[in-house]
Amino acid sequence: MDTYVTVVGNAASEVRVQMTQAGVPLARFRMAVSPRRFDRDSGQWVSGDASFYTIVCFRGLAENVTSSIDKGDPLVVTGRLRVREWEREGRWLTITEIDASSVGHDLARGVAEFRRVARPAR
Amino acid sequence: MDTYVTVVGNAASEVRVQMTQAGVPLARFRMAVSPRRFDRDSGQWVSGDASFYTIVCFRGLAENVTSSIDKGDPLVVTGRLRVREWEREGRWLTITEIDASSVGHDLARGVAEFRRVARPAR
Amino acid sequence: MDTYVTVVGNAASEVRVQMTQAGVPLARFRMAVSPRRFDRDSGQWVSGDASFYTIVCFRGLAENVTSSIDKGDPLVVTGRLRVREWEREGRWLTITEIDASSVGHDLARGVAEFRRVARPAR
Amino acid sequence: MDTYVTVVGNAASEVRVQMTQAGVPLARFRMAVSPRRFDRDSGQWVSGDASFYTIVCFRGLAENVTSSIDKGDPLVVTGRLRVREWEREGRWLTITEIDASSVGHDLARGVAEFRRVARPAR
Repeated sequence: MDTYVTVVGNAASEVRVQMTQAGVPLARFRMAVSPRRFDRDSGQWVSGDASFYTIVCFRGLAENVTSSIDKGDPLVVTGRLRVREWEREGRWLTITEIDASSVGHDLARGVAEFRRVARPAR
Repeated sequence: MDTYVTVVGNAASEVRVQMTQAGVPLARFRMAVSPRRFDRDSGQWVSGDASFYTIVCFRGLAENVTSSIDKGDPLVVTGRLRVREWEREGRWLTITEIDASSVGHDLARGVAEFRRVARPAR
Repeated sequence: MDTYVTVVGNAASEVRVQMTQAGVPLARFRMAVSPRRFDRDSGQWVSGDASFYTIVCFRGLAENVTSSIDKGDPLVVTGRLRVREWEREGRWLTITEIDASSVGHDLARGVAEFRRVARPAR
Repeated sequence: MDTYVTVVGNAASEVRVQMTQAGVPLARFRMAVSPRRFDRDSGQWVSGDASFYTIVCFRGLAENVTSSIDKGDPLVVTGRLRVREWEREGRWLTITEIDASSVGHDLARGVAEFRRVARPAR
């Protein structure tokens, strides 16, 4: 079964966009997500260690995040979670990706002006 | 255990904002969420019946959604799900609410200009 | 977009099973889900008001929950969330349903003996 | 914000249990989760590449999964998602963990007999 997940955090890199071989826009950026915990001793909310994800966007979402998102922006991202592992030069590498279906600026941290963009069918 | 949910759809009402008795901003709006299904016969993606939720926002999120969201805007909302039932004049009423932690414009449907807003501690 | 949700709580009714017109097993039961909150004054975890959902299961899952689940069992349920509203005799009725893809006994509350059941393709 | 996720798949290892320094039971096992996709050409559901997670359980859940789960069992697991990265001998290592709040056998794949276990408060 597919695994759906929503993460709330900050863009940890600029958005890098490219075209797939089939000519489809593909954008990627890194996202930092820090859990918040209520510390009973200090009576304060404190941040735990950040988890980092690679957010992958296709088609219209790829084009819109490229023109809307800057490094450091607070975001909410939802999509399908994947953990990819592969071997290179005798070492195992792991990447935790979210194939995003929706990305938005987190209005808990600021305000936004939105403009619809109608995409021609590809 | 709390139930966390993410919905992607459209604002189905304007945002109505008020102050709680404790002087905390509280904003509400309705949200329409339509499932999408691939119809194998027609080879097309089709929409199913919409589900409607009441989105509830507090403090800074309440103030920011009030100034950022219009009826019809495509949104992504994540938070805690509640189903409240109560009796009035012999009839049972039910409301399905999401106590939102984050709300954002869905950049799959357009572009946005974001501006951080620092809130004084209340 | 479809809305996926996971709820953790207790079976609030017995499982009722029937056959659809197409001859597919369909099982339903009610589920009570109570949020837990840490009460800083008392230093205790306390339960909030319960939310009630109708869990809908088809095919093999319908048959297996019928033979495995009793009213009161602690469960974890994941699937697609729907809020259906309809009018009857001038009154609006609302039901919050989860079309379950997986149901399991919550091993945080007890132990279980599992046995695979291979279903003939229907 | 914490990231909550639900995964449905199979236990990919036996459960290994130990005691933390504070004397709390801690159980771990690996889980394989394969996305399913409808292949329009063949008209069949096909599995994509599996993602692997380390499931971490504490206290009563740790004790109950140890006595209930075998390698290969179909499971549904819900909890908090973390991606931990650390450097060892000049190499970066990554592990994608779920701090489970609930684990259950997936009744879509079989039947189960459940027995409540009341834990003495620790």
